[in-house]
Amino acid sequence: MIEIIKPTLLLDKQKCIGNIDRIVNKANRSKVKLRPHFKTHQSIEIGKWFRERGVQSCTVSSFEMAAYFANDNWEDITVAFPLNYLQADIINNLAQKIKLNVLLTVPDVLPELLKKLKYGIGVFIEVDTGYHRTGIDPSDTKTLDKIIEEVESSSLTTLEGFLSHAGHTYKCREKSEVEAIHHHEVKLMNELRDKYKTQFPELKLSVGDTPSASMLESFSGVDEIRVGNLVFYDLVQQRVGSCTMDQIAVAMACPVVASYPHRNEIIIYGGGVHFSKDGLTLPGGEVSYGTVVRLNQEGWELPPTSMFVKSLSQEHGIIHAPSKMAETIKPGDVLGILPVHACLTADAMGGYVTLAGEKIERLN
Amino acid sequence: MIEIIKPTLLLDKQKCIGNIDRIVNKANRSKVKLRPHFKTHQSIEIGKWFRERGVQSCTVSSFEMAAYFANDNWEDITVAFPLNYLQADIINNLAQKIKLNVLLTVPDVLPELLKKLKYGIGVFIEVDTGYHRTGIDPSDTKTLDKIIEEVESSSLTTLEGFLSHAGHTYKCREKSEVEAIHHHEVKLMNELRDKYKTQFPELKLSVGDTPSASMLESFSGVDEIRVGNLVFYDLVQQRVGSCTMDQIAVAMACPVVASYPHRNEIIIYGGGVHFSKDGLTLPGGEVSYGTVVRLNQEGWELPPTSMFVKSLSQEHGIIHAPSKMAETIKPGDVLGILPVHACLTADAMGGYVTLAGEKIERLN
Repeated sequence: MIEIIKPTLLLDKQKCIGNIDRIVNKANRSKVKLRPHFKTHQSIEIGKWFRERGVQSCTVSSFEMAAYFANDNWEDITVAFPLNYLQADIINNLAQKIKLNVLLTVPDVLPELLKKLKYGIGVFIEVDTGYHRTGIDPSDTKTLDKIIEEVESSSLTTLEGFLSHAGHTYKCREKSEVEAIHHHEVKLMNELRDKYKTQFPELKLSVGDTPSASMLESFSGVDEIRVGNLVFYDLVQQRVGSCTMDQIAVAMACPVVASYPHRNEIIIYGGGVHFSKDGLTLPGGEVSYGTVVRLNQEGWELPPTSMFVKSLSQEHGIIHAPSKMAETIKPGDVLGILPVHACLTADAMGGYVTLAGEKIERLN
Repeated sequence: MIEIIKPTLLLDKQKCIGNIDRIVNKANRSKVKLRPHFKTHQSIEIGKWFRERGVQSCTVSSFEMAAYFANDNWEDITVAFPLNYLQADIINNLAQKIKLNVLLTVPDVLPELLKKLKYGIGVFIEVDTGYHRTGIDPSDTKTLDKIIEEVESSSLTTLEGFLSHAGHTYKCREKSEVEAIHHHEVKLMNELRDKYKTQFPELKLSVGDTPSASMLESFSGVDEIRVGNLVFYDLVQQRVGSCTMDQIAVAMACPVVASYPHRNEIIIYGGGVHFSKDGLTLPGGEVSYGTVVRLNQEGWELPPTSMFVKSLSQEHGIIHAPSKMAETIKPGDVLGILPVHACLTADAMGGYVTLAGEKIERLN
């Protein structure tokens, strides 16, 4: 094991590549385009691992992220976040260099961008297939028509298709629930495509959520899938059933600074600024901010007794550890912790260290 | 108002200086040393605002933070986090240059550091006066004696005194509760000092939590106070009663990207990677991740109708806004949001912009 002296986000490259290989192969078998969401890793290096497997397009969630990957020659990027027309300058910079797709989720936004847009962009219209965060109700033809009219009003904008994110699969606990959500999504989007196919025969359908991408074997009916979290996975995805504990490819490594066996607690150097603060309610009702693993020569393993992070302040983490276990753990020991939400933890940490000690940079 | 095009952490310098002035004056009146905790702002620039008012010592929560401020000639720094002896190298680097104080909260840690320590350091012993996160029970003479023996074992370590953090004041809702906690803390620590005063006549007592520092007028019985969050304040502190809404010196500015009046929601560009994810349970039981304010020429003000951030995903924030209010807010508008926990939000954002548009850097 490499030397750890402070909170460090470990990346098990082999597990990560395994996660990438599975989705690349599955997309190939399904004959759908894989447009992975790079918001989870935000790393040129990890992006290359996709590219080496034939992936040429990606998804991001900000224009700054698009610029970062465009600098590494990603030339087909969808910014899958509701268009923020205030960023017209960076949009122009990107659109001049690459094939940039933006996302429209409400009317009256694109006309504002068009006042400043100088280069051609693709446009996806976001459809709400049940998650109810953003997107247009597929039955709301009036709004859809209005947005399509806005796209058609300029020679700089091309309607690419419809995009949805079935984020409600994250709340599922059964594969059958995830399948039902996915099939309903695909049905709604195909009905939408059929409605507009005379006018737009080339419309694409883009879907993406890690549970569907992980648990289904085929993606017939759509053109591309976007998956982000799958590259690392985490405790939320393990709970849903998207992955096994063993497929989680990142773990925080945190030095122990105090041990209190009489109150079943260990204090680590590792807090909210390192993990961020997404929690997961355990079956017993307690909230966990991470599951403790033991670091070993090969990476990490679950210990015989379950331990979890029960509280996070700015730099302190409090681990619930049964007293007999806590007695064996001393200040200066380093514990591994599987994150609840890898996207937020990776963002808070701002970089990775592989098990071989290689530093992997990311956008900061 | 300055131009905002993406999530930006606004700093109202006047309010911030007001917060600093009040505590500096109060410490002077109380004849206690002010050793502000710089973990909240982590900014050399903001550190200078304290220095300009005569403050010469500070507190931080990591050795990296100590190094950052040492580079700006802070020469007396306490790292108020349980000593992580794995960082002996940076401790030596710092101890060679400045007066560095470390914190001991359990035995058997200092002897590990002493194997590598090359320069003199000060040592505070952390006492648990009721928060029960870290620290030694003041009645546990055996453990205290053991740690003191460790400190005495080396000519490189000097016992500075006892330190406590009454973090349980954050849960108070009445000034009288905060006062009771503070007075109990001071009583316990003075008893401890009395116990050891024959052997160590110069022991100092260091306390610090924002509610006590804000709500009490006098700090007799202690030698120094450490306060962090007070420099900005936030909704947690406002709830406790440490500050008024108007004293909160930071606000996120976030572009609106969608409005859904029929479901009382507005979507902003601003998510967990910007705010971090500390929530505050409102009287009605909902969890708030921030209170919406209106940005204006002078900074911000509370709107006539209350709105709050009800949910945060990676980059999206969902604001609860009554439909009549939501109808008036359009994509491209920029909303202000007072943070629940300013320390975590400032850490996530990594910098500030003043109302005059000046960028204020911080450690990243």
